Amino acid sequence: MNMELLQDRFYKLRSNRLFELFVVAVILFSAIVIGAKTYDIPDNVLTVMGWLDVGVTIFFLVEITIRFMGEPDKKRFFHNAWNVFDTLIVVVSLIPIQDSEMALIGRLIRIFRVLRMVSIVPELRLLLNSLIKALPQLGYVILLMFIIFYIYAAIGASFFVNINQDLWGDISIAMLTLFRVMTFEDWTDVMYETMAVYPFSWLYYLTFIFLTTFAFLNMVIGIVVNVMENEHAQEEKEKAIAEGQLTIEDLSKQIDELKKLIEERK
Amino acid sequence: MNMELLQDRFYKLRSNRLFELFVVAVILFSAIVIGAKTYDIPDNVLTVMGWLDVGVTIFFLVEITIRFMGEPDKKRFFHNAWNVFDTLIVVVSLIPIQDSEMALIGRLIRIFRVLRMVSIVPELRLLLNSLIKALPQLGYVILLMFIIFYIYAAIGASFFVNINQDLWGDISIAMLTLFRVMTFEDWTDVMYETMAVYPFSWLYYLTFIFLTTFAFLNMVIGIVVNVMENEHAQEEKEKAIAEGQLTIEDLSKQIDELKKLIEERK
Amino acid sequence: MNMELLQDRFYKLRSNRLFELFVVAVILFSAIVIGAKTYDIPDNVLTVMGWLDVGVTIFFLVEITIRFMGEPDKKRFFHNAWNVFDTLIVVVSLIPIQDSEMALIGRLIRIFRVLRMVSIVPELRLLLNSLIKALPQLGYVILLMFIIFYIYAAIGASFFVNINQDLWGDISIAMLTLFRVMTFEDWTDVMYETMAVYPFSWLYYLTFIFLTTFAFLNMVIGIVVNVMENEHAQEEKEKAIAEGQLTIEDLSKQIDELKKLIEERK
Amino acid sequence: MNMELLQDRFYKLRSNRLFELFVVAVILFSAIVIGAKTYDIPDNVLTVMGWLDVGVTIFFLVEITIRFMGEPDKKRFFHNAWNVFDTLIVVVSLIPIQDSEMALIGRLIRIFRVLRMVSIVPELRLLLNSLIKALPQLGYVILLMFIIFYIYAAIGASFFVNINQDLWGDISIAMLTLFRVMTFEDWTDVMYETMAVYPFSWLYYLTFIFLTTFAFLNMVIGIVVNVMENEHAQEEKEKAIAEGQLTIEDLSKQIDELKKLIEERK
Repeated sequence: MNMELLQDRFYKLRSNRLFELFVVAVILFSAIVIGAKTYDIPDNVLTVMGWLDVGVTIFFLVEITIRFMGEPDKKRFFHNAWNVFDTLIVVVSLIPIQDSEMALIGRLIRIFRVLRMVSIVPELRLLLNSLIKALPQLGYVILLMFIIFYIYAAIGASFFVNINQDLWGDISIAMLTLFRVMTFEDWTDVMYETMAVYPFSWLYYLTFIFLTTFAFLNMVIGIVVNVMENEHAQEEKEKAIAEGQLTIEDLSKQIDELKKLIEERK
Repeated sequence: MNMELLQDRFYKLRSNRLFELFVVAVILFSAIVIGAKTYDIPDNVLTVMGWLDVGVTIFFLVEITIRFMGEPDKKRFFHNAWNVFDTLIVVVSLIPIQDSEMALIGRLIRIFRVLRMVSIVPELRLLLNSLIKALPQLGYVILLMFIIFYIYAAIGASFFVNINQDLWGDISIAMLTLFRVMTFEDWTDVMYETMAVYPFSWLYYLTFIFLTTFAFLNMVIGIVVNVMENEHAQEEKEKAIAEGQLTIEDLSKQIDELKKLIEERK
Repeated sequence: MNMELLQDRFYKLRSNRLFELFVVAVILFSAIVIGAKTYDIPDNVLTVMGWLDVGVTIFFLVEITIRFMGEPDKKRFFHNAWNVFDTLIVVVSLIPIQDSEMALIGRLIRIFRVLRMVSIVPELRLLLNSLIKALPQLGYVILLMFIIFYIYAAIGASFFVNINQDLWGDISIAMLTLFRVMTFEDWTDVMYETMAVYPFSWLYYLTFIFLTTFAFLNMVIGIVVNVMENEHAQEEKEKAIAEGQLTIEDLSKQIDELKKLIEERK
Repeated sequence: MNMELLQDRFYKLRSNRLFELFVVAVILFSAIVIGAKTYDIPDNVLTVMGWLDVGVTIFFLVEITIRFMGEPDKKRFFHNAWNVFDTLIVVVSLIPIQDSEMALIGRLIRIFRVLRMVSIVPELRLLLNSLIKALPQLGYVILLMFIIFYIYAAIGASFFVNINQDLWGDISIAMLTLFRVMTFEDWTDVMYETMAVYPFSWLYYLTFIFLTTFAFLNMVIGIVVNVMENEHAQEEKEKAIAEGQLTIEDLSKQIDELKKLIEERK
């Protein structure tokens, strides 16, 4: 009985708006601390920061415990990907790190705490979910783009490898170079170099740019059309609800009733 | 009584189309003077320009006074952000500046006079208002983008600080560098430098580019959908007005009346 | 009588599809000749080309005369901007040019003959007209963008003139530099240079990029919405025609007639 | 009789989902082999790879034969462009190549085997078909863009040839340079060079950028509108089917029947 009361109290605390705001404040504070560490700061401030960091870690541990305790169905807690993510971040930052090599990785995990912002603010969670939801639909465009990249990288790594080892050394380096060409970053330097050996290699670059730009455009249009359709579908649904039940079918029934009335009187 | 007459006259003057055109002409003239000053010009022309500048300042003072006098409700005058902006520009340019250091700031204020163009031409004011109105809706996308920038900048400033102090010195410098990467400006130079130390750092740049491009696309699509919906809503409203009152509901009522008629005769 | 017959024949010739194709062929041929001249070619080929050029000039003179003769209403001929353009190109290329300085300008006019392609192929004329039609609607966005450019150029030319004379020498040079920044072309080089003197000048560049990107996006969206609306309006019109005359209003009238019928029988 | 049985069995095999998955796996494996060859690999692995390559070639030969045998109407087999493409790739890779010069071309053909992925996965084939279908509609925009490029290249090759032979040597080199300017790749370097001789040549670059950006935008909008319309048309069709047969016309007929009923009773 006492346990259930505690759980109920934790559930209320967890859903409390003020508690949420406080967690956001702690996350922001921890983000500022991470940022501040990249500046040159005196040693005593660094010590204070170290203590603050421990404080934040403990607070996050308490907070995740409250969340877990507040969950009526304990099994469902880890079904939520955000909860798993939160727990992971908290657990990993508990591991004491002394080695200077590992210290960097420890710092990295602290950085990802900022992402907890997304798991707490519902609007950001919604936004990220919709971004992730849009991805699989674009899967085939991404696959097509990968095929284009792979074929061009294989050609590039076969023909241009002796021209510039750093740009066309193997197929993965060539794919990175092609990504660079796609972003138009000093792509003419890459082209002029190969044109000195293969004068017609501009065809290679131009066709690649045309194909990827076209595929990219297609992807963008795909997202736009998708978003628009969702908006449109929702609008239609709202419209249907607003209009009530009266449709042409209803009118037709009314006229049928009239007909019967008249026929009865015959 | 005399005061009210004056106010009325000022109000009429203020709303006069010709007066508006004259103000626009003075603003354009003042803009040209500002532009001309950046060229090498002989001293006597510079003196003439100094006098012209004084003339423009006095004219703007008179004009803002007319606007204020012409306002029936004096309190409401400063509720309009554009009036506050106009008054500020005029008042600040009245401060006599002799010091050469301050002269630059004085010149700066004169430059912002060109923005008065926006406060006077109604179409530009409308355009700017609609731009500002679109911003808050995109607030969460901008916040998400800031989080992405912050996390990547913290990682960059932690790992790459010893590679290039000028690019990854602290978190704010790193954010500027990441903005540069987002605009694809010599981003491969930045990448190749860190790849020499961390061979897998291309993953850092590629994921960053994918995430920001995706978030940026989302923002653009957000604006497009928003604009389209506004257009659509207005269209629907116009359509509803054009169609008059006849809907399926009206037809249903007419059929009901028919029914009653027939039933009455039973 | 003979004159009218001739005009009629010219009119027929002018509207002839084969004649049009032949004119297009001559234009294409003249374009190839212009292109060929930029290569190193032997003297005797150059002489032949000179004669071909004279031939094309004469052909265009004859063709424009046929067009003019074929026009039933001579006054209307020069009301069409494309006819005026065609006549100008033909007349100017008749002027004999010997001076080597002028030869370049003579060549320039020959290049513009390729534009006659647009004046002859109706689909291209339509496309260009629709592009030109879209421009004035975007007038205020372009004006706003010019104001942004002017203010930033004035600030840049005032503060950065002593840092780099070539980039910020006067307001027009500064505007060119800002256009370069807008296209992200080595814009960080420009920024790092001024940041050495004014450490906060990154604010100047970032706000400029945000403002112009936002205004540019707005322009693009403006065009998209405009095009979509035109498409939509045309669709609605076609739909209305396809649906015939039956609307809810018609049904209402039919029911009213029924009512009268029943009432008459009372 | 035996022949037909065999064909039927091949047809079933060809349509078998597992067979398709196996072909996709072989293509992926062949792609990985091609990619692996660009890395430095020991000689014995290379020998194994050579045998694997022969294996893949034989498998593809068998597979295309099965496909051909399985086709009920042998004539229709080569009407499908994808079948022709597949056969070509297989036949060409059968030619034994010993010469080192030709070896590169042999490798090239092996690379195009990856494209067989598109010919097998139906979703990719659909995507590519829709991309190809969108092209002709944009034909006139592409033609207009080519005319703009040609005119500017002719002007550039005439005026700037003595400034930089590498950039403006002849009309085709000038077109490549202009493509570079369109992608904003170090375009200011090109411009500053010509501005040293012709101070007003910035006009040439700016007008070119405006025209091509505008034309490009038009192309993008053209695709968007086209895609949207197709989506819209399909939606309308689905809606019409979902709504069933009841339209205002049907209601009108029902009312007419009522009228007749009443009139009969008169």
